[in-house]
Amino acid sequence: MDILHRIGIHNASPDQVYDAITTIDGLAGWWTEKTVGDTEPGGVIAFRFIPGGFDMKVLELEPGRLVRWEVVDGPPEWIGTTIRWELEQRSDYTIVLFKHEGWREAGEFMHHCSTKWAIYLMSLKQLVETGEGAPAPRDVMISDWH
Amino acid sequence: MDILHRIGIHNASPDQVYDAITTIDGLAGWWTEKTVGDTEPGGVIAFRFIPGGFDMKVLELEPGRLVRWEVVDGPPEWIGTTIRWELEQRSDYTIVLFKHEGWREAGEFMHHCSTKWAIYLMSLKQLVETGEGAPAPRDVMISDWH
Repeated sequence: MDILHRIGIHNASPDQVYDAITTIDGLAGWWTEKTVGDTEPGGVIAFRFIPGGFDMKVLELEPGRLVRWEVVDGPPEWIGTTIRWELEQRSDYTIVLFKHEGWREAGEFMHHCSTKWAIYLMSLKQLVETGEGAPAPRDVMISDWH
Repeated sequence: MDILHRIGIHNASPDQVYDAITTIDGLAGWWTEKTVGDTEPGGVIAFRFIPGGFDMKVLELEPGRLVRWEVVDGPPEWIGTTIRWELEQRSDYTIVLFKHEGWREAGEFMHHCSTKWAIYLMSLKQLVETGEGAPAPRDVMISDWH
């Protein structure tokens, strides 16, 4: 089972969006300020939030087009799942197709993560469009689970 | 394939949230201002947006707990799919588990609808918490597809 999302980032090139998802500064600008690690293929990036976080191994990088990560540490529901980013220019938008693939159970936590991903993708859009995202711990709250 | 989401609405009872998803006024306050129809079981509610819209047949209503709709008209990808709302009080939140079930293809439109549902659920949360949502045509844009 997969979480799917699509956003369009206005007046931005695929390369700009690619930078925001493949550099520590970019990632810290929309997902979580506590981002450290090695962004090269085979490297591991550690994302930390107040209650914990995720370690992502970089599986694949095609500049301006594709990024793939595998979750190598984090909540049990996330371990072994993969995240796929596809970028494509369409007129004055860069379209982002996002997939968080391989969930084993459609439980309440998957519901939560789906909504929360949408919020973070809107933060990515805002970062690239305006220079200012809303990464954790300044992220938009969606529920009692943050 | 399903679209899943979860939000928590603060300082709101399940009955208040139920009202916002089972009355014309409530629905028009967070999804689309152009909402008309019959909200009783077996009735059809018509939701209209600038490019078109959806007709939903009300399949099931359990006050304060459950709402189910079937899409009887709209984009081909939506027809025959069902939408399920489950409400539950947890401390000072009403938790909303949302499922848009029965997608036949994980295409770009399903990606879009998943993100857009998250945005509308945040509008529902905002409506119930503050009295003011962001329904179409005042909704938050996520891409070239609105």
